[in-house]
Amino acid sequence: MVDITHKNTSKRTALAEATVVVSKQETIDAIKNRTVPKGDVLEMAKTAGLFAVKRTSDVIPDCHPLPVEYTGVDYEIEGLFVRILITVQTVYKTGVEVEAMHGASVIALTMYDMLKPIDKQVEIQNIRLVKKKGGKSDFKDKFD
Amino acid sequence: MVDITHKNTSKRTALAEATVVVSKQETIDAIKNRTVPKGDVLEMAKTAGLFAVKRTSDVIPDCHPLPVEYTGVDYEIEGLFVRILITVQTVYKTGVEVEAMHGASVIALTMYDMLKPIDKQVEIQNIRLVKKKGGKSDFKDKFD
Amino acid sequence: MVDITHKNTSKRTALAEATVVVSKQETIDAIKNRTVPKGDVLEMAKTAGLFAVKRTSDVIPDCHPLPVEYTGVDYEIEGLFVRILITVQTVYKTGVEVEAMHGASVIALTMYDMLKPIDKQVEIQNIRLVKKKGGKSDFKDKFD
Amino acid sequence: MVDITHKNTSKRTALAEATVVVSKQETIDAIKNRTVPKGDVLEMAKTAGLFAVKRTSDVIPDCHPLPVEYTGVDYEIEGLFVRILITVQTVYKTGVEVEAMHGASVIALTMYDMLKPIDKQVEIQNIRLVKKKGGKSDFKDKFD
Amino acid sequence: MVDITHKNTSKRTALAEATVVVSKQETIDAIKNRTVPKGDVLEMAKTAGLFAVKRTSDVIPDCHPLPVEYTGVDYEIEGLFVRILITVQTVYKTGVEVEAMHGASVIALTMYDMLKPIDKQVEIQNIRLVKKKGGKSDFKDKFD
Amino acid sequence: MVDITHKNTSKRTALAEATVVVSKQETIDAIKNRTVPKGDVLEMAKTAGLFAVKRTSDVIPDCHPLPVEYTGVDYEIEGLFVRILITVQTVYKTGVEVEAMHGASVIALTMYDMLKPIDKQVEIQNIRLVKKKGGKSDFKDKFD
Repeated sequence: MVDITHKNTSKRTALAEATVVVSKQETIDAIKNRTVPKGDVLEMAKTAGLFAVKRTSDVIPDCHPLPVEYTGVDYEIEGLFVRILITVQTVYKTGVEVEAMHGASVIALTMYDMLKPIDKQVEIQNIRLVKKKGGKSDFKDKFD
Repeated sequence: MVDITHKNTSKRTALAEATVVVSKQETIDAIKNRTVPKGDVLEMAKTAGLFAVKRTSDVIPDCHPLPVEYTGVDYEIEGLFVRILITVQTVYKTGVEVEAMHGASVIALTMYDMLKPIDKQVEIQNIRLVKKKGGKSDFKDKFD
Repeated sequence: MVDITHKNTSKRTALAEATVVVSKQETIDAIKNRTVPKGDVLEMAKTAGLFAVKRTSDVIPDCHPLPVEYTGVDYEIEGLFVRILITVQTVYKTGVEVEAMHGASVIALTMYDMLKPIDKQVEIQNIRLVKKKGGKSDFKDKFD
Repeated sequence: MVDITHKNTSKRTALAEATVVVSKQETIDAIKNRTVPKGDVLEMAKTAGLFAVKRTSDVIPDCHPLPVEYTGVDYEIEGLFVRILITVQTVYKTGVEVEAMHGASVIALTMYDMLKPIDKQVEIQNIRLVKKKGGKSDFKDKFD
Repeated sequence: MVDITHKNTSKRTALAEATVVVSKQETIDAIKNRTVPKGDVLEMAKTAGLFAVKRTSDVIPDCHPLPVEYTGVDYEIEGLFVRILITVQTVYKTGVEVEAMHGASVIALTMYDMLKPIDKQVEIQNIRLVKKKGGKSDFKDKFD
Repeated sequence: MVDITHKNTSKRTALAEATVVVSKQETIDAIKNRTVPKGDVLEMAKTAGLFAVKRTSDVIPDCHPLPVEYTGVDYEIEGLFVRILITVQTVYKTGVEVEAMHGASVIALTMYDMLKPIDKQVEIQNIRLVKKKGGKSDFKDKFD
């Protein structure tokens, strides 16, 4: 684990995304109309994501435990694609990229698990960091 | 959560994969030679994956807690691609697809986290189920 | 911890409840219309409850880890009262009363936490077992 | 999750309570004399409560992880009532009310679980915040 | 993780021990009289041990999650030595040695942590398996 | 739990050790050559130790949750002895001795678990604090 005892605290923000692709319009409709048998997919997945962000240091060996001071989750639905956007913020000595990506991956997995009974072809695509601010180097994804 | 009290126990297998793409040969070399500063990437990521598989029901709301009776992790390195292959088995009333996919995603995230200091362009691609056996319906990925 | 190695497996059901009392109709409206700033209270609290049921043996010292095979959550809103009803089932050697009560208490606490910013007088009342089936002795709450 | 990145750190205290009601004097005697078969009820429940307070952000979706810097547990036994009083303190950007209430609820549930074999009519009553200090608004329970 | 899908279920017992050595009689007296400032050492450590046994598969990478069906903790105090004896039982496909040893180590660490303010020379000695029954090979410690 | 709300933050370091003794040279060779069937013992045990350090407050009742800002693990192999050395650092109000000792004990237990199939006589010896710095009183082990 990297030594951060000497580092200064600053505000850090990370925005990550994951994309869930379903195979038919009925699946999107069921998500939007909250008629998926397992429950309200977007709300339940968001809740799972909030927990996942906070638990990142318990899951990734070298991640430092840190005070997650904000997590926000948005969804953008376009055609058969559900884009998950998650923002994490802290005021601490190290960044929250992996926290955001971990949250995004758990939201995607929860959607996959909840949609499985009604759509056998759901796929999870490119979990990635979109943007980060604070710390040594800002980062802006080339595709953004 | 789906009611499985009436279901019969049978042997279930799931094979999932995730792909981590790095941006240069030096990263692959550092992985293979175990010279990544944060540690032995493949071993540490595998260990994180073993824990993740077992903790799936604690992370995904509708997943049933179940006896994970086997988890195996393999890596295939080709060019700049590291393919993570994870097999999970149980003898229980419900399948282990999400467990395998959860393990794959955590292995990929651990690799991302460990490689970040030496390669800023690591990407995680398509976490997906490759195969499952047991239960109502076998599944074989179309790309397989 | 009570020794259950010699006990037989049978189907067990427990129904528990908790009641959350808010102080004004606006709070109930915000819950129903999903306009509480922290999110969709009933869905998020249900999700927290699903996790809590599964994690009971990690929270209560003498509870045995067991295969939670079904959890269902219902809400009944009457006036300023939100009644949380949670059913848990297993096929195992011991019952799931405490699991159901633990789930009910976490759902109530999540509602309290989410409603706090819009209603300072939310109260949690009587977390209790309503019914259980299976095992040595059925139980039916006197008030039921 | 509410954004607290801009907030100042200050000392926060919360006092919560829960009440466990047993159905006969023998139960109270067994608690006091440490003769309950499952073990020393007050000590074991207190220990479970210490853990629960620290794990609150892992259980309640919108709770921020925070440095729990003090937890104290007291019991007041009067007749057939065991009143659980729990004080939690932090020096952080947000309060510890839900942490204290979560601790109180887990202590009550542990008592319920441990007393169940000797008293079938144990009840958990009104988990509530008694007092909080620090932050925007102090709070003093009307019944206090 | 070793594949146990094909193995038969049988009753398994493991007895492990750890020894905590304190540096003066006053420490032993404080333990026995329950006057250690941090609380009742033996009861709190036992409670921590009950949790630890159940959580072993979450802590040790290759341990299978399994139904812990009995855990019992005993203490033997002789001179300045506190011997911790812990028995774990399951009816499952694999043994509970590591579970028992993990429980013993956490009980010893909890005692160390609680005694630290009153005795700076507490030591933890030889965590070891004393006996196991069930499975392929019984084991009996040579010193037993 | 000791009240630390009034304490000042300072840099704290703790170095703990545990010793694992195997019964034959073949075991040491298998560790060094990474040919133990369960996997790379030193890497997997280190990973388990990193998690354990971070999770200490979840395992030991009176331990405060704290920002683990550095953990480093070293092994010294001499004859049939594997000495585990673990350093933990934080900048916080309380020390990290128990965190380091907890990490050491989990590393030792993981080694025990992984070596069990090839060596039935592995033993874990004296988990202890070697050194600590920061806080009221430095400590240097008499044997060091």
